[in-house]
Amino acid sequence: MNPKSNVFIYDTTLRDGTQGEGVSFSVSAKLRVAEKLDQFGVDYIEGGWPGSNPRDVDFFQQAKALELTHAKIAAFGSTRRANVSVEEDPQVALLLQAETPVVTIFGKTWLLHVTEVIRTTAEENLAMIEDTVRHLKAAGREVHYDAEHFFDGYKDNPDYALSTLEAAKRGGADFLTLCDTNGGMMVHEVAEVVKTVVTRFPDAKVGMHCHNDCGLGVALSLAGVREGACIVQGTMNGFGERNGNANLTSIIANLSLKLGYEVNCAPKLNKLRDISLFVDEMANLRPDIRAPFVGAASFVHKGGVHADAVNKVKHSYEHIRPEAVGNRTRVLVSDMSGRSSVMMKANEMGFDVDPKSPRMKEFLDELKALEYRGYEYEAADASFRLMLARFLKNKPDHFEVIHYRVIDVHGEWKDELTSEASVKLRINGEVYHTVAEATGPVGALDLAIRKALEQVYPQINSVRLTDFKVRILDGKQGADSIIRVQIESTDGSEIWGTVGASDDIIEASWEALLDSYEYKLLLDNGDGIAR
Amino acid sequence: MNPKSNVFIYDTTLRDGTQGEGVSFSVSAKLRVAEKLDQFGVDYIEGGWPGSNPRDVDFFQQAKALELTHAKIAAFGSTRRANVSVEEDPQVALLLQAETPVVTIFGKTWLLHVTEVIRTTAEENLAMIEDTVRHLKAAGREVHYDAEHFFDGYKDNPDYALSTLEAAKRGGADFLTLCDTNGGMMVHEVAEVVKTVVTRFPDAKVGMHCHNDCGLGVALSLAGVREGACIVQGTMNGFGERNGNANLTSIIANLSLKLGYEVNCAPKLNKLRDISLFVDEMANLRPDIRAPFVGAASFVHKGGVHADAVNKVKHSYEHIRPEAVGNRTRVLVSDMSGRSSVMMKANEMGFDVDPKSPRMKEFLDELKALEYRGYEYEAADASFRLMLARFLKNKPDHFEVIHYRVIDVHGEWKDELTSEASVKLRINGEVYHTVAEATGPVGALDLAIRKALEQVYPQINSVRLTDFKVRILDGKQGADSIIRVQIESTDGSEIWGTVGASDDIIEASWEALLDSYEYKLLLDNGDGIAR
Repeated sequence: MNPKSNVFIYDTTLRDGTQGEGVSFSVSAKLRVAEKLDQFGVDYIEGGWPGSNPRDVDFFQQAKALELTHAKIAAFGSTRRANVSVEEDPQVALLLQAETPVVTIFGKTWLLHVTEVIRTTAEENLAMIEDTVRHLKAAGREVHYDAEHFFDGYKDNPDYALSTLEAAKRGGADFLTLCDTNGGMMVHEVAEVVKTVVTRFPDAKVGMHCHNDCGLGVALSLAGVREGACIVQGTMNGFGERNGNANLTSIIANLSLKLGYEVNCAPKLNKLRDISLFVDEMANLRPDIRAPFVGAASFVHKGGVHADAVNKVKHSYEHIRPEAVGNRTRVLVSDMSGRSSVMMKANEMGFDVDPKSPRMKEFLDELKALEYRGYEYEAADASFRLMLARFLKNKPDHFEVIHYRVIDVHGEWKDELTSEASVKLRINGEVYHTVAEATGPVGALDLAIRKALEQVYPQINSVRLTDFKVRILDGKQGADSIIRVQIESTDGSEIWGTVGASDDIIEASWEALLDSYEYKLLLDNGDGIAR
Repeated sequence: MNPKSNVFIYDTTLRDGTQGEGVSFSVSAKLRVAEKLDQFGVDYIEGGWPGSNPRDVDFFQQAKALELTHAKIAAFGSTRRANVSVEEDPQVALLLQAETPVVTIFGKTWLLHVTEVIRTTAEENLAMIEDTVRHLKAAGREVHYDAEHFFDGYKDNPDYALSTLEAAKRGGADFLTLCDTNGGMMVHEVAEVVKTVVTRFPDAKVGMHCHNDCGLGVALSLAGVREGACIVQGTMNGFGERNGNANLTSIIANLSLKLGYEVNCAPKLNKLRDISLFVDEMANLRPDIRAPFVGAASFVHKGGVHADAVNKVKHSYEHIRPEAVGNRTRVLVSDMSGRSSVMMKANEMGFDVDPKSPRMKEFLDELKALEYRGYEYEAADASFRLMLARFLKNKPDHFEVIHYRVIDVHGEWKDELTSEASVKLRINGEVYHTVAEATGPVGALDLAIRKALEQVYPQINSVRLTDFKVRILDGKQGADSIIRVQIESTDGSEIWGTVGASDDIIEASWEALLDSYEYKLLLDNGDGIAR
């Protein structure tokens, strides 16, 4: 077994990650992510490819102003072109102009690509590698050499593959990173090859850059480290080209909590979930509830057996303490787990309920009936709490709806604000009848409700909608099926989810909105129902 | 290295999979999935836990009528209760009443759980295991024994852990499956333990049941097989409790295409993507575009370098032939890849375009502008094709919109059909002005459009909406942000996606609907624009 040692974390979320389908980062989002990554403690942040993407030139320019505490920014690019001197290669010049402490270049390892893709000779390719590394080192950069398609290249011609690493080493490369660019390798194959490389280059620092095409990105990376690699490249949340890059979120947790390696971000590991969510948000991606360690479902217990057992010897049903990665245990409410899960939830909320009371049974029946009609509470905790509060505390709502109407027009009479909504509410015995216009029906309704509620509850002003999801149930029946709307709202310090369901999208949205405002009012009353 | 041999695939999508957050299967959906799994060629289908879920009793009852060609249905349950004879244990009785050819029971391996959770003695636990297995064997069942928390239990007390397997073996168990119930094991640890078990029980058939809490579900399963396990339990698409079960979809592909093992479903491997999508649909889950092998993004090429290279030596950039798993190569259209990717798409569609023409540049500019306004074509291929067709063929649409109006009312005057929409279209020079009612505004609009189009194009009748997704962009600004609507439609033989974007959800839905009908009409004209 290798002695435990330090492993560097090289984050390419902002470069390789951006190749992922559906991923998009504005330059300002990239800068914010870079700051967060640095605070979290990663060692390297690969920010982009100036020779390929003009927006990246921008990023490097502005990144110079970031006050990073530890992480080094890396510019990514390629070896010089064939038959062009490195001093005259414009792409290499751009790499230097980025003025980053680190430059990472990739070069060809697989003879097939040398001859068929870049159309040059085996020898020229080695010169391209050595020249470029030397040139960058001479300019004072830390240089990482990424051996593209290393494992495929090694299978095809092991001597040539090793000679490309030799060339990089002669040029002075600080790190030699072996890339499974196609993502098709098996764990045992990679382990063997890494062992060979580490043995062959005992003074070199060897790295791993794996992909997830076979669902093995994390395993390949960890296997490489166990054979002596000391730096791992990957992306937060594992997104990237095709099936993604090796998932750094999982790798960091595994290295630190399971395999006993030292990583610089270990002291901040309890921020792992936070940074994972932040990166998804900046990348405009929907978080994966099943993401290892950080996903919302990671420590969720559902189903009778486990829920009981968890109470008794909790630690033995969780492979790590959820708090170690900033996560927590949750109990899922569903018709499978019945009374005990709902009881746990009620207790969590501070209710003192007799599990055998008829009221509890009524509640469970009502819950089943609502779920059958399309309501789903897993992402709508606030709606669930409201329901529990209404049942167990006979809590009246802060306002009552008398009616609402929406008109929506487009075409010949098209105006900018094409939706008008009127709402009539009763609050504390008085009737409030308001109207509002907006560019859409849900927006118009929302403004009209607020116009009414704000007159009595000015704090409503602080509530903002942050997400709005619509799903059709009984999906095969077109536009008249049950529609479930889930919204997420915030008042700047709490975030909460609510749900509505109806065969009418307006009504479903309406329900979710009302619950959101009612929940805000409960939050402010501080009567313990809301967390 | 172990000699290549046959590996059995044990699918627990319909039992362990159902524990996953957000997963729900109706009984009829379960039966349809069971049939598909059998056609695909899995060896075992674990259908449920009759002692825990009444709906499962139903499933097993109806499953008897399925005409399965190969797969064996398994009922899942637990060893008998402590201090109760197996003949008198009602849960065990239910297992037999399910009348399945196979019964799988789990038992405690970890002494901690024996004493603290089920509160009995080490010896009684062994008796519970042996008795139950023997009882089921005597009733003529094939019996699989799942050793719960095997690896944790083995770490804690290896002798006791092995003795639980001994007990199951004495009872006559056909398979001894080692479960990493908590999902916390590392690959090298599991490999070692499996090797020990296989050596200790040379005549036994050893299995793997792993979870994905560390992102290693697939790797753990494959490592176990390499050490001699001959059956792997998992779920299609890897969903299940917490971070999911070991992903069978990935495991099957890896075993067959990469590691040279024989699996019964190998002849049907090109249906892997189909069955993956089918299972997600039945479970009401959104498919993961980055799922290994089967995800829509698996063989997508984005970014200048790869797109060019792919054309030249395509096979060297893809770790397997996509068709082997029922997938295909795709070129992603985005502002990163510019001309060459759009050209590839146009060629794919049979257009003969000069890449340098001003028309192409105009198109790329228009595309960028539309993407900036919220349109996204990655899941809306039909909208993209329509746009390309309009640009490159100056193709007029089959119909033109003059105006549309929607009224939506709720409250005191609430009627069942609360939305009325009127639509005025021009088709082949004539004006069609129709009105329709429905329970929601989008449904009303949809009916009104169809009422108009059907008069000239009766084939519109066959089009159904199968999915409707709404996403708010610039998400942080509440209900007046840009709303993107993506719909999926089918006419029974093709499925296509269209998109609309607006700050008004009705207008966004309207655009997506119109594109869908226009696309259907193009499909029928067979002018090659649609695939």
